[in-house]
Amino acid sequence: MELTAFMSQELPRIEGLLREKTDSLSEYVRPCAGHVLAAGGKRLRPLLTILSARAFGYGGDVLPLACAMEFLHSATLLHDDIVDGSRLRRGKPAAHTVFDQTAAILTGDALLALANRMVAELGDARLTQLLSEAILQTATGEIMEVAHIRDFAMPVGKYLEIITGKTARLIEAACLCGAVLAGAGSEGEDAAKAFGLNLGIAFQLADDALDYTSDALVAGKTTGADLREGKPTLPLLLFLCSLPSREATGCLEILSDDGERNRQAETLLKAVTEGGFAEQTRDRAQAYIAKAEDALAKFPDAPHRKLLRQSLSGAAKREK
Amino acid sequence: MELTAFMSQELPRIEGLLREKTDSLSEYVRPCAGHVLAAGGKRLRPLLTILSARAFGYGGDVLPLACAMEFLHSATLLHDDIVDGSRLRRGKPAAHTVFDQTAAILTGDALLALANRMVAELGDARLTQLLSEAILQTATGEIMEVAHIRDFAMPVGKYLEIITGKTARLIEAACLCGAVLAGAGSEGEDAAKAFGLNLGIAFQLADDALDYTSDALVAGKTTGADLREGKPTLPLLLFLCSLPSREATGCLEILSDDGERNRQAETLLKAVTEGGFAEQTRDRAQAYIAKAEDALAKFPDAPHRKLLRQSLSGAAKREK
Repeated sequence: MELTAFMSQELPRIEGLLREKTDSLSEYVRPCAGHVLAAGGKRLRPLLTILSARAFGYGGDVLPLACAMEFLHSATLLHDDIVDGSRLRRGKPAAHTVFDQTAAILTGDALLALANRMVAELGDARLTQLLSEAILQTATGEIMEVAHIRDFAMPVGKYLEIITGKTARLIEAACLCGAVLAGAGSEGEDAAKAFGLNLGIAFQLADDALDYTSDALVAGKTTGADLREGKPTLPLLLFLCSLPSREATGCLEILSDDGERNRQAETLLKAVTEGGFAEQTRDRAQAYIAKAEDALAKFPDAPHRKLLRQSLSGAAKREK
Repeated sequence: MELTAFMSQELPRIEGLLREKTDSLSEYVRPCAGHVLAAGGKRLRPLLTILSARAFGYGGDVLPLACAMEFLHSATLLHDDIVDGSRLRRGKPAAHTVFDQTAAILTGDALLALANRMVAELGDARLTQLLSEAILQTATGEIMEVAHIRDFAMPVGKYLEIITGKTARLIEAACLCGAVLAGAGSEGEDAAKAFGLNLGIAFQLADDALDYTSDALVAGKTTGADLREGKPTLPLLLFLCSLPSREATGCLEILSDDGERNRQAETLLKAVTEGGFAEQTRDRAQAYIAKAEDALAKFPDAPHRKLLRQSLSGAAKREK
């Protein structure tokens, strides 16, 4: 079976349970929750949970656990868009602009609780513990990112810590929880964890590269949004590292002045892409993909392992 | 043993674990989390969890479960103050004014996750499930309240639904979880649930009465804040119900106009209190306290039941 066939089989079931659970919410929460869920997305996290559980031989129902991962992700999106002041989400108006900030904050809380409840209902406290840990790390990563806004002198290590927290930990949890549900044992769990963590880092690196190179219409977002918002991401950090120290100082001065940074945004974007730093960021993503592949080698040699390998190639490209 | 003696024994231990867990958070989350925890409060929820567990004969460690309840409560305070636009919390600057909105939103998420993790670590999925359900209902109650802002024609039943969601469900969970930890059995659990639910409703009713009567300095908040913010609470709803229909219509017109409502706030406040509607609200609180006492009769005849009874008398007064 190919990944596309697997997806066309699983996605309708995922969408079905997401809708059913959203419909079960109070009428006060439902519209805003429905909005963020309907904005779509690739349902990467639930797909990974299902694939991971199946790869480790689980034949039972993975859907509630898988959908809990998507609800968790949606909750973080609701809060992140407020925090980032983003007006758009996947090319559509963000929930806090359609409804209001109050609805977005509290619906986010409700979805966090819904996800926790769905996992708690499975009766395995270990799964709930992993989920809570992932939420804690995701929120911490987000706060860290906000704390380092406009900090263009930030070391690359700190940048990696941020993206690991805000993006990779939840993807790691999606894979790990699938393995735990399947009773994969400690070696299997370690493999699932390493696969998810590295895939998650690669995923965010590719996304950050995309922001310097993508066509706005294709990606449903504006090129250079990170630069304009003052988010120091890897393409820019690598560019700054490449400059002789006097030039780097001058460039940091421009970057730290909001007006100047926006006036010179096009020039800066061009310098970063033409210097090949978006490409270098993609190369780094590829290196994490390779690590994820190494982790896959420790999975059982099941058909679903092949599908997990196929899912990797898409993650590193992320052209839209 | 008296309640005050019990509290002076338990409170330092509660504060100790709250501090230890807060200190274990990332440096990015710690300051804002520390701020909301340091603002104090009576630690009602953790005290109830400990008392409930002890009343049902549990001799083990209740502290982690109890403190999880306080973290959960703190998380909701962080988000509520943003939603309500409150500048003060217990007479001190609210977290989102000292830090910023981003820190308050994401630290709230981190505390929700911390609470869930602490409960998940106890290894009983049922407890996590009850906790998630309580968070979901609390968030839903809050959204419902916001949806009915300025809705002064709201029926009393809807008001009760709102305060049950936003306040009582978490207090119910604090008592119920203590009983579940103690293995109280289904009758014991029902009694703990009924005790907490009714106490929680009484608690919010007394708080809403207080807003019409309290001295601002004593309560650390302004009298009439609910009226000015357009929150329809029971004293005002009862006052409106008491008016002949033509007068009620005229009064609703004044209330629904923000400028007019604020200009006539003092007159309205006086009409509500002098008509005895704050007092009637307190009487209703007392009726819920009586229901909570009935529930207590189904608790085992242990010394801690006496302490739970003592805690009731304070809740209905809430003079500060």
